[in-house]
Amino acid sequence: MIKIGIVGGTGYTGVELLRILARHPEADLVAVTSRAEAGMPVADMFPSLRGRVSIAFSDPAKSSLDQCDLVFFATPNGVAMGQTGALLGAGVKVIDLSADFRIKDIAEWEKWYKQKHAAPELVAQAAYGLPEVQRDRIKMAKLVANPGCYPTAVQLGFLPLVEAGVIDVGHLIADAKSGVSGAGRKAETNILFSEASDNFAAYGVAGHRHWPEIRQGLAGVAGKAVGLTFVPHLTPMIRGIHATLYARITREADFQKLFEDRYRNEPFVDVLPSGRHPDTRSVRASNLCRLAVHRPQGGDTLVVLSVIDNLTKGAAGQAVHNMNLMFGFPETLGLNDLPIVP
Amino acid sequence: MIKIGIVGGTGYTGVELLRILARHPEADLVAVTSRAEAGMPVADMFPSLRGRVSIAFSDPAKSSLDQCDLVFFATPNGVAMGQTGALLGAGVKVIDLSADFRIKDIAEWEKWYKQKHAAPELVAQAAYGLPEVQRDRIKMAKLVANPGCYPTAVQLGFLPLVEAGVIDVGHLIADAKSGVSGAGRKAETNILFSEASDNFAAYGVAGHRHWPEIRQGLAGVAGKAVGLTFVPHLTPMIRGIHATLYARITREADFQKLFEDRYRNEPFVDVLPSGRHPDTRSVRASNLCRLAVHRPQGGDTLVVLSVIDNLTKGAAGQAVHNMNLMFGFPETLGLNDLPIVP
Amino acid sequence: MIKIGIVGGTGYTGVELLRILARHPEADLVAVTSRAEAGMPVADMFPSLRGRVSIAFSDPAKSSLDQCDLVFFATPNGVAMGQTGALLGAGVKVIDLSADFRIKDIAEWEKWYKQKHAAPELVAQAAYGLPEVQRDRIKMAKLVANPGCYPTAVQLGFLPLVEAGVIDVGHLIADAKSGVSGAGRKAETNILFSEASDNFAAYGVAGHRHWPEIRQGLAGVAGKAVGLTFVPHLTPMIRGIHATLYARITREADFQKLFEDRYRNEPFVDVLPSGRHPDTRSVRASNLCRLAVHRPQGGDTLVVLSVIDNLTKGAAGQAVHNMNLMFGFPETLGLNDLPIVP
Amino acid sequence: MIKIGIVGGTGYTGVELLRILARHPEADLVAVTSRAEAGMPVADMFPSLRGRVSIAFSDPAKSSLDQCDLVFFATPNGVAMGQTGALLGAGVKVIDLSADFRIKDIAEWEKWYKQKHAAPELVAQAAYGLPEVQRDRIKMAKLVANPGCYPTAVQLGFLPLVEAGVIDVGHLIADAKSGVSGAGRKAETNILFSEASDNFAAYGVAGHRHWPEIRQGLAGVAGKAVGLTFVPHLTPMIRGIHATLYARITREADFQKLFEDRYRNEPFVDVLPSGRHPDTRSVRASNLCRLAVHRPQGGDTLVVLSVIDNLTKGAAGQAVHNMNLMFGFPETLGLNDLPIVP
Repeated sequence: MIKIGIVGGTGYTGVELLRILARHPEADLVAVTSRAEAGMPVADMFPSLRGRVSIAFSDPAKSSLDQCDLVFFATPNGVAMGQTGALLGAGVKVIDLSADFRIKDIAEWEKWYKQKHAAPELVAQAAYGLPEVQRDRIKMAKLVANPGCYPTAVQLGFLPLVEAGVIDVGHLIADAKSGVSGAGRKAETNILFSEASDNFAAYGVAGHRHWPEIRQGLAGVAGKAVGLTFVPHLTPMIRGIHATLYARITREADFQKLFEDRYRNEPFVDVLPSGRHPDTRSVRASNLCRLAVHRPQGGDTLVVLSVIDNLTKGAAGQAVHNMNLMFGFPETLGLNDLPIVP
Repeated sequence: MIKIGIVGGTGYTGVELLRILARHPEADLVAVTSRAEAGMPVADMFPSLRGRVSIAFSDPAKSSLDQCDLVFFATPNGVAMGQTGALLGAGVKVIDLSADFRIKDIAEWEKWYKQKHAAPELVAQAAYGLPEVQRDRIKMAKLVANPGCYPTAVQLGFLPLVEAGVIDVGHLIADAKSGVSGAGRKAETNILFSEASDNFAAYGVAGHRHWPEIRQGLAGVAGKAVGLTFVPHLTPMIRGIHATLYARITREADFQKLFEDRYRNEPFVDVLPSGRHPDTRSVRASNLCRLAVHRPQGGDTLVVLSVIDNLTKGAAGQAVHNMNLMFGFPETLGLNDLPIVP
Repeated sequence: MIKIGIVGGTGYTGVELLRILARHPEADLVAVTSRAEAGMPVADMFPSLRGRVSIAFSDPAKSSLDQCDLVFFATPNGVAMGQTGALLGAGVKVIDLSADFRIKDIAEWEKWYKQKHAAPELVAQAAYGLPEVQRDRIKMAKLVANPGCYPTAVQLGFLPLVEAGVIDVGHLIADAKSGVSGAGRKAETNILFSEASDNFAAYGVAGHRHWPEIRQGLAGVAGKAVGLTFVPHLTPMIRGIHATLYARITREADFQKLFEDRYRNEPFVDVLPSGRHPDTRSVRASNLCRLAVHRPQGGDTLVVLSVIDNLTKGAAGQAVHNMNLMFGFPETLGLNDLPIVP
Repeated sequence: MIKIGIVGGTGYTGVELLRILARHPEADLVAVTSRAEAGMPVADMFPSLRGRVSIAFSDPAKSSLDQCDLVFFATPNGVAMGQTGALLGAGVKVIDLSADFRIKDIAEWEKWYKQKHAAPELVAQAAYGLPEVQRDRIKMAKLVANPGCYPTAVQLGFLPLVEAGVIDVGHLIADAKSGVSGAGRKAETNILFSEASDNFAAYGVAGHRHWPEIRQGLAGVAGKAVGLTFVPHLTPMIRGIHATLYARITREADFQKLFEDRYRNEPFVDVLPSGRHPDTRSVRASNLCRLAVHRPQGGDTLVVLSVIDNLTKGAAGQAVHNMNLMFGFPETLGLNDLPIVP
């Protein structure tokens, strides 16, 4: 059993983390902090946790997080970078579910996140928590930058092709659709039920913060810069991301086999048989990514379909996967829930 | 480990049963039958089960169900009553999720289900599988009639009041709202997405098959006939039942305490603090029933709010609870998933 | 053509009013005020109005509303009561879609709306804008208090029974379900898509502001106080109210005929044939109320089903109906859109 | 007033056509045929039409469609081609909303629609009913092939770019998302509420019948064959198509101006200001197409966003637009409903 603290447990990522950790056999949840809600039992805010999570939100200032073995940050961007240094100094491991440590190029991060980075020296030492790419680094890491939801779905879909060098990485297209929970639990008009329901739209076509993160990840694999057009859309469902990926073939290969070989031993990536179309519910509330690769009409353009649950594999589930790796637990421990269908 | 067979695994009750049993530590799933789909891997129909359920649907005629310790029927009404006798004769226990053994009055059953009952002699010996009322009988039973979804939500809501004799049982009102999965996985026009979404309607006001089941259950507790107006509605969500119950007070009592006392030791019933309103998602994909009792403006009418997941506590979860009781397993074994929120 | 101003056009009631008035042949929209959005073209906030509504939001202080023939208030409660007196004094007619003038008992209003009433003298002269009951008063009125959405659906459903004196008005039950747009276009967490979608819950069981409004309306018809248990619920759809009404029969009658006779000449109320269940989409985006009356199992309890679109017959459509009455236009002018199905 | 018949009025396209025609000042609806439902009042099947459509479904054999001025086919593919010849011979004009006359290459049609074409000679004379491209031909036509929903959204989005010759037409990508009503009102399991709700998936990636239709249309404009990767997706909303289009720039231009100039005089196409993202609800239940053009990060890939209501501009509304053109009515007659928001 390890002692765990969560900073910022009132958002969707936080409640998903609580759902998973409440049943994790090695997790002893000792603190969930929230300045605004200090004193309120966590299960009062989220009645789904009644009888399973008995602690109350605590004031960050009084939470003795430095007594934990591990602290998760499920906070808005900009919070973790201010507190991580002290925790690491106290021997506490940190998994940050926000974006503070994801981008290695500090100037790039500052441009997209519109603030000065408070701890550039920690960025270099942070492992990027995509286990399918960085497993060994994560095992050794004290600090893990948990990937964004879109970057998880998009990178896992392009990865086998980029690694094999069979596509034009200068002109990748990722058309991604996210459930509304991806926008967080913020009181904003555009994600009200009456706005987002029975409706569909793109957003952020001019530029989205996940664009540099995806490019960094794929460039690392490709060994060179990649060109990417990334268009996110909001789709009227709660959970789920469906990324539809387009790439021009530069070298012939057995693409189906490429995917199956790449992910054969990955516990959380499932390559569907040829011709199938994964739906987001087939991974709902699970830590899985399901993939299918198509080549329509035998042309020169490949289409990869990639689905994840944005809150699980795209956030809290992947964070717990990283925790398992960092503490030497079995990788799938506490993460073998089956998807909820229907 | 017990050997388990499922007859009829292609509906929503079936796939929910598979989801739960796939992780149940005492369940060894040996057969899932479907005449129409024999030979097809179960996970081909339900990709959410890929990697977790490896067997294929089998022909009922060739399935050796009589080698099982337990057979679940997740079939349309009228199927189980034809096959249960032989299974019981072979020493196999049976849990029927359909309505075949729920109504003790055979004539009443035949009137509502519009067919002749094929095994009236088994009806008498069947235990009604509502553990909160029939726990001891279920433990001894070879055959359990798993309750309907509405009857579960409605009975649990009225139970403390009827047992205590504090309301007019001659004029109960149950206004119930069900998610669309309650209508089953049938290709029918009225439950198409484009019909049922962004829409709300009552149905079956003149008479619904769950009406006699609820009345039988409550009459058993009241010790006399009960009068019930039952209006079911279809609401645009996948899972969940919300029953809003109205009863006239005949004797003063501490109603909140009545509920808390009644369910204090029940692992799957949660009475909310005074003044709360349970929402269906707070039990989504879990085996819980959450209840709240209100007395608006201090008048003479009580309002009870009762929520369950129709596929879990209202069907497959309760069936596994009954299995645990019948085989002496811990009651909550395999049933402690937390609700999925959001 | 009459000159029309709208105070507060940024909510759902406002945009629905704009949708209807943009095509009304007698409406000349001259001002839509919004302090916060002054200067922004209305169609920038609501692109659905592009090409149809060309004016911009204007500063209330500079809007010359006193030059209008009619001003609609689509504002939060408490705004209209402060401005209506001056407008009436300038010869401008007023239709208030908020609750400021609905409740005749000032103390009761102040209790439920938690503020001091600024213009009690106007409350007495305001006509309650339910045309099916107050048609003649509305025609003469300078000031109309447009009814709430629940009160419209509930009153129209109980009306024929109360007028005929055939039910126990001391124990009425109204179980009402509303689409989420009924909660308004406010940035509040509980009406976010990820909270309200795939979910169902009651709210305000202890007391809702529409309770005194319904009681006042029905008492006026009954000629005595009425007892009412009113339970509103939030249902995951955008538009629509479904009220399920329960009443104990005190005198036998041909209830179907009672409803048909009562509403025979009403252009916006449609009584369905016996045995039918109206669905909310059958009135979506139209000014209709559809009703059905049931007597389950021939018992002593009547069930009335009443559906409206909360934004149209429950708000903006009824307001325009009132406008037509006040200005002598044909009642259905600009209001004969057909419901949107599917 | 012209006499109008509809063959096949029980699907979503049919009921949308009825909704529009019921208010069209020049339309006299004399027959709606349905073999299966002959004798049933149309408003019994679609209560939204109560009081507005008074005729019953009639037997196709007895319907005297040859007395009409115009017949719409809202039938499954393969029906219209068998009956159109006789109607044209009787002097009746025909608008076919199915695919029977859309594809000029008969062999191509037979390959995709998997049947022998019954009237190849009529295909040549049919006008393709996309008014923005074929207005003059439609005005003269006796027979109009109404475009598919995806082809309408995709062609209108690519059109200005293809006409101007500024993109690589050999590698177009159309990532399209459709509401579920696009799949029709068929009792099929995959479009049940409990399957399609809270879910998202691609389908038909290997090949979709609208692919050759889009290619034919764009090739006609380009003057050469076009290469197209077309991936349709099902999104959990009732109405609406959102097409996200990707094209590589081959020649610099002011792309925003190109779109604005092209559609300046089109009554049903609205080009949004630079930087906007149209949402599907901004055209809900209206005959509009709204477009936006983006060039992310100033790169070499253009992104066009195109939204329509699949049942209106994508089917019935466009059909009535074509009717207006064929009979010399004002183009927008009966088609100026505003979109329904929220």
